[in-house]
Amino acid sequence: MKTTVSAEKIVSILNEVISPDKDFIALHEPSFQGNEWVYVKECLDTGWVSSVGKYVDKFEEMLKEFTGTKRAVAVVNGTAALHICLKLVGVERDDEVMIPALSFIATANAVAYCGAIPHFVDSSEETLGLDPVKLDEYLQEIAVVRDHACYNKQTGRRIKAVVPMHTFGHSVDLDKLVDICQRYHLELVEDAAESLGSYYKGRHTGNWGRVSALSFNGNKITTTGGGGAIITNDEALGQLAKHLTTTAKKPHAWEFVHDQVGYNYRMPNINAALGCAQLEQLPAFLARKRALAHVYQERFSDVEGVSFITEPNFCTSNYWLNAIRLKPEWSHLRDDILKLTNDHGLMTRPVWRLLSNLPMYEQAPRMDLTVALNLESSIVNIPSSSNLGAAYVES
Amino acid sequence: MKTTVSAEKIVSILNEVISPDKDFIALHEPSFQGNEWVYVKECLDTGWVSSVGKYVDKFEEMLKEFTGTKRAVAVVNGTAALHICLKLVGVERDDEVMIPALSFIATANAVAYCGAIPHFVDSSEETLGLDPVKLDEYLQEIAVVRDHACYNKQTGRRIKAVVPMHTFGHSVDLDKLVDICQRYHLELVEDAAESLGSYYKGRHTGNWGRVSALSFNGNKITTTGGGGAIITNDEALGQLAKHLTTTAKKPHAWEFVHDQVGYNYRMPNINAALGCAQLEQLPAFLARKRALAHVYQERFSDVEGVSFITEPNFCTSNYWLNAIRLKPEWSHLRDDILKLTNDHGLMTRPVWRLLSNLPMYEQAPRMDLTVALNLESSIVNIPSSSNLGAAYVES
Repeated sequence: MKTTVSAEKIVSILNEVISPDKDFIALHEPSFQGNEWVYVKECLDTGWVSSVGKYVDKFEEMLKEFTGTKRAVAVVNGTAALHICLKLVGVERDDEVMIPALSFIATANAVAYCGAIPHFVDSSEETLGLDPVKLDEYLQEIAVVRDHACYNKQTGRRIKAVVPMHTFGHSVDLDKLVDICQRYHLELVEDAAESLGSYYKGRHTGNWGRVSALSFNGNKITTTGGGGAIITNDEALGQLAKHLTTTAKKPHAWEFVHDQVGYNYRMPNINAALGCAQLEQLPAFLARKRALAHVYQERFSDVEGVSFITEPNFCTSNYWLNAIRLKPEWSHLRDDILKLTNDHGLMTRPVWRLLSNLPMYEQAPRMDLTVALNLESSIVNIPSSSNLGAAYVES
Repeated sequence: MKTTVSAEKIVSILNEVISPDKDFIALHEPSFQGNEWVYVKECLDTGWVSSVGKYVDKFEEMLKEFTGTKRAVAVVNGTAALHICLKLVGVERDDEVMIPALSFIATANAVAYCGAIPHFVDSSEETLGLDPVKLDEYLQEIAVVRDHACYNKQTGRRIKAVVPMHTFGHSVDLDKLVDICQRYHLELVEDAAESLGSYYKGRHTGNWGRVSALSFNGNKITTTGGGGAIITNDEALGQLAKHLTTTAKKPHAWEFVHDQVGYNYRMPNINAALGCAQLEQLPAFLARKRALAHVYQERFSDVEGVSFITEPNFCTSNYWLNAIRLKPEWSHLRDDILKLTNDHGLMTRPVWRLLSNLPMYEQAPRMDLTVALNLESSIVNIPSSSNLGAAYVES
């Protein structure tokens, strides 16, 4: 028989699934059980911790191989990666860029760094990410294509790109977005910060956009301390990504000549060393995280008023961050759940405040955001570290 | 009796001073002889490699203490630090910022990131950095003060700040610059990326500007792999620096609310751990570097046509990067010297190309740059790692 949702019930399920062995269970913590110390120690022993050393190259090779892309460029973090992605596809001052209202702040800030304007798109109930059907209808209404470029009829500004973000690791419906981008002459840039190890129809997320951004922040499925990467199948853009993220310095044995305004965004070797050790363990992390999600899904299936968020049918998700969603009549419980779980040392948190409601983006254009608003008030993230799933992996 | 300068003579002096024990002597390599392993391993063992962990706080405390400033904020690199410094003093789009033409690219790029325009200033023969006397004369000619702000009469744009850079660790004449900034209502921001451990009249460089930038790149006197810091005596600006470099997120147990366009510039904990171990050794590094510089100075004093660059009399320099300067009649030897030394595994390099001649800054305003041009053609940096000075430190 189904019980109904309550803060106590959530605490009880989390305790049951996690079996906490310490006072505080983080939302997501890294696991360093592989070659981390060996590789990092090698950096210290050789003195190669910074711009010189083999681990950045190795890390980029491993990323290419894992994501199936032709070029990967390691940078200081996911925000920097997305900033450069937008530069690479030609986003310029006063352009508009279509992004989800429901995302981490970096998605909007990267647009702002280009002097461009975020234009907010509603989310899909199924993926939590940008809704391609609603985007298409909206563009039919507000956009016009002229000379192979897309313009906003209302603001007169060029719309240059669409940046879907794969929320919690669950991919958006990329086929539909690829089609929209072709019809409207928009560049597709994936914010794949959360979706390393997630696949859309068998192909890795981030391998669909012209360029895409990954993140290796401390809370991600694999970490470099702080880090990110740009991935692409366009060799020329990949080379330009490397150039732009390393101060646009022209190669020379000793001369310092820079040919454009570049960025100091390269990942230090010591962080890349950590990343190499982490990527070696990624398949194991994925197995644990999917096992944990499966157990959560089962346990929550018995509770009325709440559902565990699962991968869309076209996606094999990394289940980076597990989440439950309260049904509308129970969403008033959200803050009680957040408080009681955190009071019990079980870290949970709501999803981000809609970017479109933050003071610096209040004036930015947006479509109707009904679904995103509903998601904002009803989602709770629950502990998701890969080590919590270790017990559930079939050996 | 004095011998005259030649590429062979330079190679011979370098070999004599350095007594190379390997095939290649870098221009500057880090030394990890302290607690680097201990601190970095602790990060891995506890899992605190990223945004959480004690080393960022500890590193910032150590920086405050060492520089005598009230607040230090650790960031991903010196470029990011300078970018935020300019934001903090209110540099806005279409402002002009007075910077030396002879500097690393970051000095100009940080201005460009703000949408502002670098305005190039000539160098002093004595300090290699921004010449305050020439700047004062130039401002008398082109600037006007109106409503407590300084304007360029020729372009109509506001001149907001002056950014001296302490070249190779040798400080500019800060008293004169402080005076100019007061008279012209300009903000003083020190680019102290190269001068950690350098003092102007007994007070640490970076402790004179309203805010200042430090760097911990792999080639600096102390390194965090990649890193930088903002230092200031203005508590409110220090707090804002922390806020702006951590995505401008308002403090809350679980909500994600950001109150302005911020940056993802915080230094990861694992890099700060490295930094703490390095700062503990900074006094020893300084002693070795000054000892090495002293030996170079003696050896080069016997050679006609070249001089070893020494600290100005008002500065106690960290001698971060040692340099020799060819007299005008010998500057045609520069490239021969660069080639022969590098061919012999003794890394040397010229100073940076003048920023004012790079394609993206060719249109930027500038004063007469005669001294900077002369320096550009006559300076050669020579190996400067602290370990090269170990043998010369009196025990």
